[in-house]
Amino acid sequence: MSKNESLARPRFEQRVPDGDDRPRRVCTDCGFVDYENPRVVVGSVVSWQDQILLCRRAIEPRRGFWTLPAGYLELHESAADGARREAWEEARAQIEIDQLLAVYSIPRISQIQLIFRARLTAPEFAAGPETLELDLFRWQDIPWQEIAFPSVNWALGHYEEVRDLAAFAPRANPPGETGDFPGR
Amino acid sequence: MSKNESLARPRFEQRVPDGDDRPRRVCTDCGFVDYENPRVVVGSVVSWQDQILLCRRAIEPRRGFWTLPAGYLELHESAADGARREAWEEARAQIEIDQLLAVYSIPRISQIQLIFRARLTAPEFAAGPETLELDLFRWQDIPWQEIAFPSVNWALGHYEEVRDLAAFAPRANPPGETGDFPGR
Repeated sequence: MSKNESLARPRFEQRVPDGDDRPRRVCTDCGFVDYENPRVVVGSVVSWQDQILLCRRAIEPRRGFWTLPAGYLELHESAADGARREAWEEARAQIEIDQLLAVYSIPRISQIQLIFRARLTAPEFAAGPETLELDLFRWQDIPWQEIAFPSVNWALGHYEEVRDLAAFAPRANPPGETGDFPGR
Repeated sequence: MSKNESLARPRFEQRVPDGDDRPRRVCTDCGFVDYENPRVVVGSVVSWQDQILLCRRAIEPRRGFWTLPAGYLELHESAADGARREAWEEARAQIEIDQLLAVYSIPRISQIQLIFRARLTAPEFAAGPETLELDLFRWQDIPWQEIAFPSVNWALGHYEEVRDLAAFAPRANPPGETGDFPGR
């Protein structure tokens, strides 16, 4: 029996803690308040010359679909450091960050995505443990029917939109779009 | 005796949960994994004509010092909605967001700050519960010696830097600066 199995399951209730103004998850055993915060995803549209690096996901959700090198920001990490770490973990790629391309908000899952425009420092990359395969794609060769998430589509579109701009205001969600899949 | 006082205190240990790759806070009683994430602060440099809205803090840390209307992003909230909510909560101000001014990373306290450039929709404002007083300041009248946090100084400087630009790349931490107070 593992240590985990020997433990009781946590019991939480929704309750407004003292001094707060909205309900939080509070443990009924020990009073621990689980302050849930939005999570930050950091990632990049990474290019080499006129091609874009995409990774085919080896993990759920959306295993087998194509995405950008991106993932959750860790504690004590700057946004740019997190984006560089994810490029290395998922694509064994070393990148040079140019500027912030977009800030997307996915309110249903409380996610803020900070997506940078970046370049490979050399045309070298390899699949990390969360990636099945990866490749550089010309715009017309991007597997549009097999993109993992709506925000990947947005980022690619915004990348194309600012391709010739040296400096620009970062993009946000397309009007009215929340990042959920249609019909879900 | 309040409900809180009747509860035992939570006991956490640092341990690598199954399937993870780094230590997390795990409750020794029930196995709950407290995945700590960086927190997102949203706020704005809010102007009315050539003046900037600043709020004197009614709460610690840095009670009595001047800051921007800003605070933690809540669950299920977009970044822009959060910045508008904070302007209302702290300054009873209605704002129109222009564009993202800056993304600051404060790694020591695992904070990502998204600071917008915004305008008052009317010259109306009032102190919310976390604000002692507030006012519009001309650049030369800003109380530079009584600014609450380094990132407030950065945001004011970056605001001035892009004052005449309709679109610009958002700014990041000044080179080498981490947002900590000197000497701490």
